[in-house]
Amino acid sequence: MKRPPATGAWRPGDDPGRRQFLRVAVDRPFILDGGGRLRDVDIAYETWGRLAPDGGNAVLVCHAWTGDSHVTGTDDPVHRTPGWWEGVVGPGLALDTERHYIVCANVVGGCQGSTGPASPHPEDGRPYGSRFPVVTVRDMVRVQRSLADHLGVARWLSVVGGSMGGMQALEWAIMFPERVASIIPVCACTEATAQQIAWTAIGRRAIRLDPGWNGGDYYDAAPGEGPHGGLAIARQIAQVTFRSDEVFTDRFGRSLADATTEPLDLWQRYEVERYLDYHGEKLVYRFDANSYLLLGKAMDLHDVARGRGSRTAALARIKASVLSLGVWSDLLFPSYQQRRLAELVSAAGAPGTYAEIDSPHGHDAFLIDVDQVGDTIAKFLAVVET
Amino acid sequence: MKRPPATGAWRPGDDPGRRQFLRVAVDRPFILDGGGRLRDVDIAYETWGRLAPDGGNAVLVCHAWTGDSHVTGTDDPVHRTPGWWEGVVGPGLALDTERHYIVCANVVGGCQGSTGPASPHPEDGRPYGSRFPVVTVRDMVRVQRSLADHLGVARWLSVVGGSMGGMQALEWAIMFPERVASIIPVCACTEATAQQIAWTAIGRRAIRLDPGWNGGDYYDAAPGEGPHGGLAIARQIAQVTFRSDEVFTDRFGRSLADATTEPLDLWQRYEVERYLDYHGEKLVYRFDANSYLLLGKAMDLHDVARGRGSRTAALARIKASVLSLGVWSDLLFPSYQQRRLAELVSAAGAPGTYAEIDSPHGHDAFLIDVDQVGDTIAKFLAVVET
Repeated sequence: MKRPPATGAWRPGDDPGRRQFLRVAVDRPFILDGGGRLRDVDIAYETWGRLAPDGGNAVLVCHAWTGDSHVTGTDDPVHRTPGWWEGVVGPGLALDTERHYIVCANVVGGCQGSTGPASPHPEDGRPYGSRFPVVTVRDMVRVQRSLADHLGVARWLSVVGGSMGGMQALEWAIMFPERVASIIPVCACTEATAQQIAWTAIGRRAIRLDPGWNGGDYYDAAPGEGPHGGLAIARQIAQVTFRSDEVFTDRFGRSLADATTEPLDLWQRYEVERYLDYHGEKLVYRFDANSYLLLGKAMDLHDVARGRGSRTAALARIKASVLSLGVWSDLLFPSYQQRRLAELVSAAGAPGTYAEIDSPHGHDAFLIDVDQVGDTIAKFLAVVET
Repeated sequence: MKRPPATGAWRPGDDPGRRQFLRVAVDRPFILDGGGRLRDVDIAYETWGRLAPDGGNAVLVCHAWTGDSHVTGTDDPVHRTPGWWEGVVGPGLALDTERHYIVCANVVGGCQGSTGPASPHPEDGRPYGSRFPVVTVRDMVRVQRSLADHLGVARWLSVVGGSMGGMQALEWAIMFPERVASIIPVCACTEATAQQIAWTAIGRRAIRLDPGWNGGDYYDAAPGEGPHGGLAIARQIAQVTFRSDEVFTDRFGRSLADATTEPLDLWQRYEVERYLDYHGEKLVYRFDANSYLLLGKAMDLHDVARGRGSRTAALARIKASVLSLGVWSDLLFPSYQQRRLAELVSAAGAPGTYAEIDSPHGHDAFLIDVDQVGDTIAKFLAVVET
């Protein structure tokens, strides 16, 4: 494997593949939720299918922490790996690229074409790095609203996403209640809990510990010299919280990956360690450490109640039908959160339904058990569409 | 707070406090379970009470990952903080310092007086550092057996411990079945699972990432220059797995620790982050990074079946009465492990009982809900003593 570049971000000049771009806040400040400012904000997005004449078939899919606009992998010479939600999005599937108009945008602060810390600062053309401001889930949604305007989507049939994507779906229904007929937050929550914050916070500290991070300004580092070790550790922490004890035991047990030496070596790896190393090393080729920090912070900051009086007051704004999906084995976003979300929405006046994915795969079940996820979404949308 | 020394280990020349020392394998090799060799192995231990003339009142308490011999804090001018199991060990308590003869030793590989990586190598007097061999739970127990011989304890009334201490209790009953009347493994398991290994492995990687670790040879580093950042992160990971979602939500919720700036700062901390920082920073003053690595590895290597044909064959050696204690909210050592341990012991022929601590505090409940733990132990020992 060749040495990873300082950032795994998509950079201007790289092949865009299926990406299209919209620039918003041209020559004017885009004031962020946290008080920071951006201007000339690029949004990278992809679409599948066509907007119906009545505009009623548009579905926005929102990606999670390390996702991007490439929700399904068909027809893109640049992406050699499949999209991140194959089995849910595609021809004849729950989110049907032949019947729906599917839109997926890389979030602001991300690193796959939308403006983020690896992007050139409009003032000097050098990467933002440590200058990039804090963004929130609400900022992501406001940018997506501009994209909806641009695409002529007055009202989404549904806004759908898992994890951080589900947070965006929820904020859409709260911020722009007239513009969403339904939302499907999957493995999401009304606010990040202390335990969720703890996990992202420890990942932050691992990246900060890496001398290659250099306070966030590492973009001119030589290949292999970026904050790869710290990002890999942060990813490994997340990877354990994304899965489950049961699945790890079934898959890895106590199998060894490395040969046994005499005497025994402290660094001899079990299979589960090789798996973690693999996932850590893989991420550094396709992601940017500063984006990882920013989007993790955006999740920590997620709290529908903030600035709205209370959680109840926030949820009372919702007019959309809400399908809240959970997974019983989810460690990171335990299913009580999704169940409560549906109950609170119902109590606040909009139709809220909870459905559970029966899977041992933990938080990542939404990306793994796509047949169950797709079936549940399809049944829900069939009712919304009538 | 002054800058932490390169290691938080107790070093020869430091005030021993209540510690007593036994040196084993004097001028001869002590061949370790993993094939490494030590010689002139010092064991630091403390005792409370007196051995009864019939020798039937001796209880060995085994400490967990970052514990030491100081299980109860009375009468020690060196230890300004209480012992780690106050409420369970003490006058009139379940492990009664007025009635029992209580022994607690720092494990081999540790850093509080027993020979470990921070100790002087007998050949050159310089710290072992990277030269220190891998140790296992079985090595800890073999050393404790020498201590038992030295103290004249032919048979322990009970061997008791939580987490890594529980692993030692279990190995005592398997390795020396004639020498234990009972064992009380608390929040322990028959073998480390892939998920448990994953958590220790990520902590290992955090320490390795720290330039201050320097391959394990950092003992001549200036104060503040040791592997403190890496050790703190490893500790933070453990700290989350030691507690629970419920308790974190109750205790910290979404409270902020740092003032809000305009614009918002990426590094503004929630209360839970301040708590994690506090625990990480605290550990570096009292612990050694290499010991942390070694004892974590010892837990990963824990598997009663290893070299014994099968788990069943291993457990069939047990003659002691076994009380396996679990906590329903334990994330790291889920209670199915302790329940199964009791069932397997019973199936293999010895009396095995499971009891559950009703606590939301997770793995650390064994250190927190000491009244419940003590009551359960006292009832069990009352039967064993008759």
